[in-house]
Amino acid sequence: MAFQSFHPPVRTLMGPGPSDVNPRILEAMSRPTIGHLDPVFVDMMDEMKELLRYAFQSDYALTMPVSAPGSAGMETCFVNLVQPGDKVVVCQNGVFGGRMKENVERCGATAVMVEDAWGTAVDPNKLEDALQANPDARLVAFVHAETSTGAISDARTLAEIAHRHDCLVIADAVTSLAGSPLKVSEWELDAVYSGTQKCLSCTPGLSPVTFSDRAVSVVKERKSKVQSWFLDLNLVLGYWGGGGKRAYHHTAPINALYGLHEALVIVHEEGIEQSWQRHRNNHEALRVGLEAMGLSFAVDAASRLPQLNAVNIPAGVDDAAVRTRLLQQYHLEIGAGLGPMAGKIWRIGLMGFASNRTNVLLCLGALDAVLGEMGAPIERGVAVGAAMQAYQSQAGN
Amino acid sequence: MAFQSFHPPVRTLMGPGPSDVNPRILEAMSRPTIGHLDPVFVDMMDEMKELLRYAFQSDYALTMPVSAPGSAGMETCFVNLVQPGDKVVVCQNGVFGGRMKENVERCGATAVMVEDAWGTAVDPNKLEDALQANPDARLVAFVHAETSTGAISDARTLAEIAHRHDCLVIADAVTSLAGSPLKVSEWELDAVYSGTQKCLSCTPGLSPVTFSDRAVSVVKERKSKVQSWFLDLNLVLGYWGGGGKRAYHHTAPINALYGLHEALVIVHEEGIEQSWQRHRNNHEALRVGLEAMGLSFAVDAASRLPQLNAVNIPAGVDDAAVRTRLLQQYHLEIGAGLGPMAGKIWRIGLMGFASNRTNVLLCLGALDAVLGEMGAPIERGVAVGAAMQAYQSQAGN
Repeated sequence: MAFQSFHPPVRTLMGPGPSDVNPRILEAMSRPTIGHLDPVFVDMMDEMKELLRYAFQSDYALTMPVSAPGSAGMETCFVNLVQPGDKVVVCQNGVFGGRMKENVERCGATAVMVEDAWGTAVDPNKLEDALQANPDARLVAFVHAETSTGAISDARTLAEIAHRHDCLVIADAVTSLAGSPLKVSEWELDAVYSGTQKCLSCTPGLSPVTFSDRAVSVVKERKSKVQSWFLDLNLVLGYWGGGGKRAYHHTAPINALYGLHEALVIVHEEGIEQSWQRHRNNHEALRVGLEAMGLSFAVDAASRLPQLNAVNIPAGVDDAAVRTRLLQQYHLEIGAGLGPMAGKIWRIGLMGFASNRTNVLLCLGALDAVLGEMGAPIERGVAVGAAMQAYQSQAGN
Repeated sequence: MAFQSFHPPVRTLMGPGPSDVNPRILEAMSRPTIGHLDPVFVDMMDEMKELLRYAFQSDYALTMPVSAPGSAGMETCFVNLVQPGDKVVVCQNGVFGGRMKENVERCGATAVMVEDAWGTAVDPNKLEDALQANPDARLVAFVHAETSTGAISDARTLAEIAHRHDCLVIADAVTSLAGSPLKVSEWELDAVYSGTQKCLSCTPGLSPVTFSDRAVSVVKERKSKVQSWFLDLNLVLGYWGGGGKRAYHHTAPINALYGLHEALVIVHEEGIEQSWQRHRNNHEALRVGLEAMGLSFAVDAASRLPQLNAVNIPAGVDDAAVRTRLLQQYHLEIGAGLGPMAGKIWRIGLMGFASNRTNVLLCLGALDAVLGEMGAPIERGVAVGAAMQAYQSQAGN
């Protein structure tokens, strides 16, 4: 049997991630591999920590990428901060709150769930109530930007409530980092994890995390060993921690880190506020175009993520057939719904490098054509023009 | 503050890994990112499983790469197969047996240690004794090729003993895969993990694993949940398992997987036996050269790994100064000793793409020059010629 090199097609990635990767990042990843203890590499690691702090708007010393995807970043936060017998309040308004619950329980702790409808923000009043009813809770966990529904929650307010009840805060910033305002230190979030394949526009596979000194103290003073050797920050910090000699823990994913470094240099060049604004502008143009077509959003305007647009699938339209046609005819990937939203929404990402005018126009044009051909009840031929008008009025501002 | 793109120097990597990466692999990694549920990507995943089975000489259905480095592959084996209260016999003859013990204990199980001197193979008689003394043991774990010492153990015999005592076998094949004979199915190893950055010559960051049906049954029938959500094979198989629809578990590291696919295509093109033989041949030439220089090996000939040469540091020679000079003057990286062997040995890797004649001659020439300049007690000017003669006699065979 003969095997060939794999040559992927060129897609436009407008799903929930991975998003289109900036070619600068792909090129950076193909640079020569060097050793994980090479002094030149160690200097790059230090610079990467600085760049991550900028992207997170964090001044925490422990800021680094976990050598595995976002799910492992989530697990890093839970296994290091949760001890057996702990009580953790988990806010759930989508898929990832449910995954947090799994993490809590697998740490031998109890999860107290605060439930909100999928597609809505976490309700701060419910969190307040849960903490009053559970004065022995030690941690509060929530998702800042729910990738499964496209809803953003008020991280600053949720963290304030948690701290008033003497709880540390774990926040999922997988989709928010670089796409929506996120101010880790100002909002006093204690343990935050993210991913590389969303608004950083890097390839998937790494999970940046940032931990407050308060959180680091908990990790250092815990009585039981962290149940994961690979994710135990007490050990990982021997390699990623500042100063002195770097001790081998595991072999770092060198070339993936080249890519993340380049992604962070690009964010720094643009400016983090400018990146947030660009995501907002492209979302606005997409929204105007989709609404002109007669499509509607699954999330209220106030809680809507600019980088992940949850769009209601019109009645009678075959979800999978539309996505397949977009992929085959336009090489355009958009995302399906998850869980209770499967078959009901599409998730259209405008993340990082993919958040640009070309993609907005392609997506509107392709949806217009495909939905029209399939006889969906939409207004044809108006979406692209409406989006262009939106861009022109932004430029006039 | 301004940040620049990171441009690494070009090194020759002859340490314990990462090893020199084949440029074909670096190029493959820079191809356009596509979605982790894209049908084209899913087809590539199926092909990758075939290629991994070939490299492992395994016919196990569960054969796939874990989305994180080798340490996470180790943890995948332990957290899935070990349950709280279990007794696991761990053979230790270097760093990685110790890490296995950590894994066992963090799973709430007991590790019975079988200790052998660093730099020697695991003694099958000691394993037999330990299993007779511990009839309630359920698992045996050992390292096939100890990266920390350069010693290989007899995996087939160790597995036979374990099975006679009704134990499953976990084997570390991080450094052996594609470098030394490894026949997973024939030897009936039940759970084997490896890494990409050794004899596959790929970048670090992924960990191929292969599990026998017997091991999969244990994972499926265990009473307690796997303590790691990220590494729980019951969930991961929803994505990597064969047939039907692939369910999202975590976002796969797309471009890293392009690289691994290319690495495996290269192994398949060469042939696995041919790859083992090439590692043997280059090791022989290096050995002849080092011995002509007056250097000696830390491991007996019978247990010596061809891909990782543990060389005794001559008395009075400054370990770190030699390695620094090799790096600065020759861009050549060799490895330091670990644990009790720190300062006593160098670890010279000849792994995968790095196992070639050019590297052997560079390493011998550079060591000759650097050790000579530093006044080490070596025979100067003979190593390269001796190695060339060894190559010529190999060609004459």
